Amino acid sequence: MIRVGIFGYGNLGRGVECAINQNPDMTLVAVFTRRDPSSVKLVSQGVGVYHVDEVLSFKDKIDVMVLCGGSAKDLPVQTPYLAEHFCVIDSFDTHAKIPEHFENVDRVSKKAGNVAMISVGWDPGMFSLNRLLAGCILVDGADYTFWGKGVSQGHSDAIRRIEGVLDARQYTIPVEDALERVRRGEAPTLTTREKHTRECFVVACEGADLSRIENEIKTMPNYFADYDTTVHFITKEELDRDHSGIPHGGVVIRSGKTGKERENTHIIEYKLTLDSNPEFTASVIVAYARATYRMKKEGLCGCKTVFDVPPAYLSPLSGEELRRNLL
Amino acid sequence: MIRVGIFGYGNLGRGVECAINQNPDMTLVAVFTRRDPSSVKLVSQGVGVYHVDEVLSFKDKIDVMVLCGGSAKDLPVQTPYLAEHFCVIDSFDTHAKIPEHFENVDRVSKKAGNVAMISVGWDPGMFSLNRLLAGCILVDGADYTFWGKGVSQGHSDAIRRIEGVLDARQYTIPVEDALERVRRGEAPTLTTREKHTRECFVVACEGADLSRIENEIKTMPNYFADYDTTVHFITKEELDRDHSGIPHGGVVIRSGKTGKERENTHIIEYKLTLDSNPEFTASVIVAYARATYRMKKEGLCGCKTVFDVPPAYLSPLSGEELRRNLL
Repeated sequence: MIRVGIFGYGNLGRGVECAINQNPDMTLVAVFTRRDPSSVKLVSQGVGVYHVDEVLSFKDKIDVMVLCGGSAKDLPVQTPYLAEHFCVIDSFDTHAKIPEHFENVDRVSKKAGNVAMISVGWDPGMFSLNRLLAGCILVDGADYTFWGKGVSQGHSDAIRRIEGVLDARQYTIPVEDALERVRRGEAPTLTTREKHTRECFVVACEGADLSRIENEIKTMPNYFADYDTTVHFITKEELDRDHSGIPHGGVVIRSGKTGKERENTHIIEYKLTLDSNPEFTASVIVAYARATYRMKKEGLCGCKTVFDVPPAYLSPLSGEELRRNLL
Repeated sequence: MIRVGIFGYGNLGRGVECAINQNPDMTLVAVFTRRDPSSVKLVSQGVGVYHVDEVLSFKDKIDVMVLCGGSAKDLPVQTPYLAEHFCVIDSFDTHAKIPEHFENVDRVSKKAGNVAMISVGWDPGMFSLNRLLAGCILVDGADYTFWGKGVSQGHSDAIRRIEGVLDARQYTIPVEDALERVRRGEAPTLTTREKHTRECFVVACEGADLSRIENEIKTMPNYFADYDTTVHFITKEELDRDHSGIPHGGVVIRSGKTGKERENTHIIEYKLTLDSNPEFTASVIVAYARATYRMKKEGLCGCKTVFDVPPAYLSPLSGEELRRNLL
């Protein structure tokens, strides 16, 4: 049995807990929280919840610690800290800061002899893996990543910070026409506006100036100004009834040419359609937690990403079973 | 530079040659053929063509030998034979015989200290990899593989063996309705007939009994009897004009459930749309030839499949570059 710990218990932590329950070779040993442990109710029976301050007393009781904090403030501190004491895995998703995070985690985990996986999930994660594979196969080609339809937490939060807004939910939606052009192998050059639209469902305070709010959303730099944005004002009840899920997904497409005269076109498409973004991310993480455990057992150490893991390490099956049943 | 040899020069061998030309870190050293070498004309300038009997004299001049023979008779003999002298890679695609082929190749390559990759292409190959990855992520789910629309060489050959048939081309076509049900997450149980149809374009000899030919095709066991099959009789000119390409492709879909009560559905879809089956297969092989070279350099040996290769090994870029640009 692979003994797993969860560090941070929000949507992602709960997803990891559920995913562990689907994998018979794994067991959840403990959940660590910054809140009062008695206030945290798990999905599973019989698993202890502890304050994060107690984590080091579990040093020999946990094979892989899954970090479920945020990329902005939690993981840059927590992952290097815990990698000194545990094999760890996180879903650090600030793309621009991955090299820095890698260096920090690599230094500590190498010194401690632990395996530390970072940036595991679907983007970064499975989408990255598919960009790598497709690019190595179709050397002469172009890459496209479309996100959605799905909820962007960051954009929803940005709307909530506008004066007069009570609550909001933002969907990122790929432009179907652009997708079709890519799928046809046209290899178009697409602007930000041509790739995605943004749709916002906003609950305003009573008496708020709706046209000011709409204008502030649509002109917000970085978040909305470069997109065609639609704003719908709805009631709190409608928001809770119709927009409480956390669906997401997207598609990575590579279109490339082969042949003596580049006469043949090929399209590789990897598409995710997810009812629950955190539960799918958690499922990816748990599969790679198994790989983390395997790599440690093999005597490896240091920081790893999805690029470094032989796919067979994700599976509880033997090489022989995999070749017989899946190859 | 990675020095590559091609053993067998048909459609696949020519595809490998073109793919090597797209990869600046690789160079084609020699092509080996069973035919008279002077009768073989390559796409590239300045590369020697040799009879297969001369292959051992290239022992220290080739880093990876790419085997481009057939799975029925060539590869079961050639791959173990050459794995004693070279690092090799093949596209052995008789799924049921992969375990046996693996054992034969593993024994020889381990003894010789060579790396030998087998069954590289898209199915087996990239489709297998996606079945493995998706199954490890969505543990509670169902797998679907659809092939086509594309030309099946084996089925085309089977038609050509019927008396009165001059030439033929067979397309395998996924049933759109079944595909849509899978994509909607219905996880249906599908019979052979419900998944694919077969469309045949047949050139008959003058005076042949067309209804007998049609009947023989549609009732042919294993090949056509379990499918809804359409037969079109056309002229040799029409066949050459409209059906000379070798397109193929297909899709691997996994649909799975997560959450406390399995309340969330997720779909992972990997889709290939290929103008040229052999050129795409060749492009996959050449990327894995780089991995073969890397594994050998690291001191590994023995038989490997796509399941064993860390994805970063496929790329000429460094780990740092990959993390910065693709993760």
